[in-house]
Amino acid sequence: MNCTVIKIGGRLVEEASSLGHACDRLAALPPPFVVVHGGGVLADELCRSLALPRRVIDGRRVTDAATLRVIVMAYAGWINKSIVAALQQRGVNACGLSGCDERLVVSRRRAGTGVDWGHVGDVDRVDDRALARFIARGIVPVLSPVTLGTDGGLLNTNADSVAAAVAVALSDRYAVDLLFCLDKRGVLADPGDDSTLLPALTRALHEEGKRRGTINAGMLPKLENAFKALEAGVRSARLLHPRDLGDDAAGTKILLS
Amino acid sequence: MNCTVIKIGGRLVEEASSLGHACDRLAALPPPFVVVHGGGVLADELCRSLALPRRVIDGRRVTDAATLRVIVMAYAGWINKSIVAALQQRGVNACGLSGCDERLVVSRRRAGTGVDWGHVGDVDRVDDRALARFIARGIVPVLSPVTLGTDGGLLNTNADSVAAAVAVALSDRYAVDLLFCLDKRGVLADPGDDSTLLPALTRALHEEGKRRGTINAGMLPKLENAFKALEAGVRSARLLHPRDLGDDAAGTKILLS
Repeated sequence: MNCTVIKIGGRLVEEASSLGHACDRLAALPPPFVVVHGGGVLADELCRSLALPRRVIDGRRVTDAATLRVIVMAYAGWINKSIVAALQQRGVNACGLSGCDERLVVSRRRAGTGVDWGHVGDVDRVDDRALARFIARGIVPVLSPVTLGTDGGLLNTNADSVAAAVAVALSDRYAVDLLFCLDKRGVLADPGDDSTLLPALTRALHEEGKRRGTINAGMLPKLENAFKALEAGVRSARLLHPRDLGDDAAGTKILLS
Repeated sequence: MNCTVIKIGGRLVEEASSLGHACDRLAALPPPFVVVHGGGVLADELCRSLALPRRVIDGRRVTDAATLRVIVMAYAGWINKSIVAALQQRGVNACGLSGCDERLVVSRRRAGTGVDWGHVGDVDRVDDRALARFIARGIVPVLSPVTLGTDGGLLNTNADSVAAAVAVALSDRYAVDLLFCLDKRGVLADPGDDSTLLPALTRALHEEGKRRGTINAGMLPKLENAFKALEAGVRSARLLHPRDLGDDAAGTKILLS
């Protein structure tokens, strides 16, 4: 049986009109599928409003206690429930979940890299059996990247990594297609020119793009996670714009070789 | 089979130490049980920080779009996931849910009372079958009072009413005991004197207390919901302090006559 894992984040789900469009496409996908989302724009906005300092290293937010509360409120709260409501409006029976719920995604607090990351975690394990129970009942899990630390606290985790870990974990049971949604058509040879879409990207092309600096920094975690997921048994991985969801030839297909 | 529905809110779950104590008691309860929570203190605090005006009529918050976002962030986000993490730490496999998830609690937008309530809903129906599926798997549902409007949007709903509606809906399948947690020992004859606990409260005593003004305003929605739930088939209803959870003789037992 197939299963699609779709990562979507940023303005694509944080602005009401783009969220609506994305959910139109999601509602047209053949089940089963799982949605994993981000929510950094709202978290940034809230941190600014609450005068919390924003400190990001390598694209990862240093998360003190006050920032963790904002992250959980934004990701597990508003964004998660907005996506669920938008899917329910379209007849998709979604269930919004975070890693702490049923211990679906347990992570290890990031430490020992010379930086005090605070409440930041890296995925340790995904409970594919619990996720599969939702899927078997026809429910679409909508997962926020708030995870449960092995020490029992909530941790802020990278949503691309959560999506990849979920895809890998589900690969024991399903043939999994992993889709990373972008606000571009896919990986572009020239990031400023939408007509330079690369229909496929191999590891070798990826390494070359990184050397030349033509691969956009924001794409790196998606690409690294896509390659890792393929190596760990995910059937396919693709980067695409949400308007192309459902089109198996759209976007950039990631290939191990 | 028995099932306990526990409503808990305010400082009892919004301060880390009280949350820990409450979860110690919850973790010692015999399963199955369902937790329904509030979260008004954090919502008020956020509204103040974000300079959103607070307008409350009859204990119910008028909820414009910006306030709805705060409500969803506070209730469905931070409070919900904090309770789930605290229960997981104590070995209880909890799952944090809101009414939109699996359409568990659908509500009707409040209208026609001369006030524009905004995004405020009154419970229309609870999907007891979906809730029972969590219970049957040994999962403890932790429900926020964010519900799904019949028009598809998220609505702010009174948590006491959600707890009562959940208890009534589950009464088709279980013998349900409904517990409202308070920061007092129960209903007090003299609200300022903890030694004046009423071990039981009938409708007649309740009406008398309302006339005399000895029943605290904050207790009214809990008491009204408790009476309504008993009339609709809930086996028992009780108001008590969370430290007394598990003690069937503690607090104030609500009796129809």
